[in-house]
Amino acid sequence: MAIFVASNKMTFKMAKLTSRAENYSQWYNEIVAKADLAENSDVRGCMIIKPYGYSIWEQMQAELDRMFKQTGHSNAYFPLFIPKSYLSKEADHVEGFAKECAVVTHYRLKAAEDGSGLIVDPDAKLEEELIIRPTSETIIWNSYKNWIQSYRDLPILLNQWANVVRWEMRTRLFLRTAEFLWQEGHTAHSTKDEAVKEAEQMLDVYATFAQEFMAMPVIKGLKTASERFAGALETYCIEALMQDGKALQAGTSHFLGQNFAKAFDVKFATKEGTQEYVWATSWGVSTRLMGALIMTHSDDFGLVIPPKLAPIHVVIVPIYKGEEQLQSISDYALRLKEQLQIRGLIVKYDDRDTHKPGFKFAEYEMKGVPVRVAIGPKDLENGSVEVARRDTLEKSSIAQGEAVEYIFGLMDVIQKNIYDKALKHREDNSHRVDSYDEFKRIIANEGGFVYAHWDGTAETEEQIKQETKATIRCIPLDRYDDPGVCIKTGKPSNGRVVFAKAY
Amino acid sequence: MAIFVASNKMTFKMAKLTSRAENYSQWYNEIVAKADLAENSDVRGCMIIKPYGYSIWEQMQAELDRMFKQTGHSNAYFPLFIPKSYLSKEADHVEGFAKECAVVTHYRLKAAEDGSGLIVDPDAKLEEELIIRPTSETIIWNSYKNWIQSYRDLPILLNQWANVVRWEMRTRLFLRTAEFLWQEGHTAHSTKDEAVKEAEQMLDVYATFAQEFMAMPVIKGLKTASERFAGALETYCIEALMQDGKALQAGTSHFLGQNFAKAFDVKFATKEGTQEYVWATSWGVSTRLMGALIMTHSDDFGLVIPPKLAPIHVVIVPIYKGEEQLQSISDYALRLKEQLQIRGLIVKYDDRDTHKPGFKFAEYEMKGVPVRVAIGPKDLENGSVEVARRDTLEKSSIAQGEAVEYIFGLMDVIQKNIYDKALKHREDNSHRVDSYDEFKRIIANEGGFVYAHWDGTAETEEQIKQETKATIRCIPLDRYDDPGVCIKTGKPSNGRVVFAKAY
Repeated sequence: MAIFVASNKMTFKMAKLTSRAENYSQWYNEIVAKADLAENSDVRGCMIIKPYGYSIWEQMQAELDRMFKQTGHSNAYFPLFIPKSYLSKEADHVEGFAKECAVVTHYRLKAAEDGSGLIVDPDAKLEEELIIRPTSETIIWNSYKNWIQSYRDLPILLNQWANVVRWEMRTRLFLRTAEFLWQEGHTAHSTKDEAVKEAEQMLDVYATFAQEFMAMPVIKGLKTASERFAGALETYCIEALMQDGKALQAGTSHFLGQNFAKAFDVKFATKEGTQEYVWATSWGVSTRLMGALIMTHSDDFGLVIPPKLAPIHVVIVPIYKGEEQLQSISDYALRLKEQLQIRGLIVKYDDRDTHKPGFKFAEYEMKGVPVRVAIGPKDLENGSVEVARRDTLEKSSIAQGEAVEYIFGLMDVIQKNIYDKALKHREDNSHRVDSYDEFKRIIANEGGFVYAHWDGTAETEEQIKQETKATIRCIPLDRYDDPGVCIKTGKPSNGRVVFAKAY
Repeated sequence: MAIFVASNKMTFKMAKLTSRAENYSQWYNEIVAKADLAENSDVRGCMIIKPYGYSIWEQMQAELDRMFKQTGHSNAYFPLFIPKSYLSKEADHVEGFAKECAVVTHYRLKAAEDGSGLIVDPDAKLEEELIIRPTSETIIWNSYKNWIQSYRDLPILLNQWANVVRWEMRTRLFLRTAEFLWQEGHTAHSTKDEAVKEAEQMLDVYATFAQEFMAMPVIKGLKTASERFAGALETYCIEALMQDGKALQAGTSHFLGQNFAKAFDVKFATKEGTQEYVWATSWGVSTRLMGALIMTHSDDFGLVIPPKLAPIHVVIVPIYKGEEQLQSISDYALRLKEQLQIRGLIVKYDDRDTHKPGFKFAEYEMKGVPVRVAIGPKDLENGSVEVARRDTLEKSSIAQGEAVEYIFGLMDVIQKNIYDKALKHREDNSHRVDSYDEFKRIIANEGGFVYAHWDGTAETEEQIKQETKATIRCIPLDRYDDPGVCIKTGKPSNGRVVFAKAY
């Protein structure tokens, strides 16, 4: 458990969090700091993901990677650098991604002649500037051009785990950083239908991951044209509701049509011998999921982590006076630890003598360990242990003979409970609204998801955004046929879309 | 096995390799291309790691990561960008790393006014240029400064999996690329002794990985002062011998002393209440190991992969005429596959009807799958299968009842055999040399490791390098006390060092 030891020793200071009610944004920043998840670096907008935070990201990566491989994808790696000219090749893409980006112009430094330090060597200017990838469609489709000749070369189903850079002006740990970690899938297909199915399949993978592992309910939907990925014909998304009533886009999957194939001239010979452009998808989730995880479940005592993503499932804390008591407690605690480990749980026994039990309790609450077991001399006498759940903060006295089963069983119980709680929060904060006045009032005061009719035009969408700061998060995939009239213009609408203020 | 299907469909063309004897360098390039491991990108010096190559790298990562965690390390992530001024803070480090590097000078592009495309926006010039990390000591020690106050904060045992960039002028797939993938461990300690032990421990981890997993014998040693990492007091290394008689440095572990602590002013309060600078190590291996793996074992038929790192252990190829034969063969083949999978092996059944068995055999030889099983109608009649080993190219007819045990057992046999073969090659090509004439002759004609006496001066080392292109690969850790005289100067020497030409 070096993750824990190292991190809490490094910076952990036991101090109460600002409450969510008092200042939600401050609460978020404090959790990220006090649970030792990440911190800002000296490089503007770039974060340092600390060991405990990174260990949660590793759990996410492992599950997602498994799901990608189960659906037939392989990993590969493409260059960090994109020649400037590549970005211009797809007309919409350049609009979206060629603005705020890190530009490499030189390849050498040299000592300043006046001894003042290092300067950029003017003789080492690149002929063509290189952009640090903000996303890799262009460099990947430039390769696919060489890889694809015939229908037999298709499909190509690749994923890449990588760092990307978008020079954001206002950054926030995990939620929006200049450099972030992500995975980006890039697939090539011989038919439109197959590409659409792939984009939808990967959306399902993301939704399953969000719900089953992150215990975070999501709405699956389509973005409106104005919110689409730059270069996509359709952008599918999953949208989650945070505790402050703001939406967070947690993952996107794009049907790119033949746009990139046309931009990079990627054609294939069909079975019939004709030449056609290749169909494409791309899809990604990022370290932003860490922000979503934190904001979905955590409370005023700190982080709450779903057991399926927890780096540590159970912490055992001895409560003792003197070596002799500690010895008897440790004998039992280590047996309990071993039995839980056999069941596949990750267990930490914290017998540090430098900290009091109360300090440790608060620390593990802050770090979101799902279950805490405390064992004192009275427990030994009574043949019991005290089991505390992080999600409900409830404590129970459990007979030692039943402790392993009980604690093991709690993992599913907690996973389900925090999902249900998040789902209830979302349902309690989802509104069907039919007038613009009510819409404005709810968006301004209550937040949450607002299901309302919209006339389908970009103009109306933009007006509503200007007036209320609410955007259309998505057109839900499961919406039923439900004609109505636009809350803003009174024009006809086929069904409700989901509005919210968003991260 | 999408890795395989995708990759061989994409670019696989069955053609003989140039032999090692004919042109070793060409042979290497062809294997990398024909086994579909990697290719050059349009970005100078940057490679694309293709799915099959990446899957081998993933196996390496998984094992190394496990070993790092077993020795108490956690993963974290630090920024891609290093402010230019950081590089200057450690005097030796700047000499080594502030030269050929990718420099970010701007953070925005804009459309050219003449409509000619994108140009760098001159208004978006960074106040301080950012360097793409060539290695992360500086940015990490800048953080450690905030993380370390007291001896209780130590040790810090972190590792990072990341991409780094060194603007190499002459590049070669896997062996030397401008961008490469690696892991870099960075640890902080309260005593010199502990830091030295850590550097030595991680060298042992690398040596164990090289020998046990890569089946590649290595010499553990110390670099001479002139070959040390820029900023290190000692650089430990593992050195392997390739089939062409050239050495390859496969991993390094550095004892950094207090250099970075002093450069970044990182002090800690000791138990006694005094303030001391922190002691440091760093250690890394990279995708260069892929080059080492290829060159250690492969032959004129293609790649040879040790079973412990193979993405596919066994391929089963049916040999049949007509649907009915295929059906009977498949029934058995799929049962065999399942039984091997239960044993933990990764098995592919290749029943593609688009390629002949002979083509498939050559393909799997090229890709280095350790064991190939062929099943034809005669095998079914006889209750046997044909098992071919990639390492020896030997074929055996094995009774079906014994096939699972036999194939499973072959994994260890092959792992050991290719290690032994590589070790024999190294021993056959290790020379004890006592005269400079013999030294020059062997270095020029035979290559290999040359154990020779050296007077311990940088001048002599440099002269020998200038005259023969051989460098001191290392001072072996296990060298015994063996006084002698320097082959070049005749001055006294305490023991032999290892010379070779190197990659």
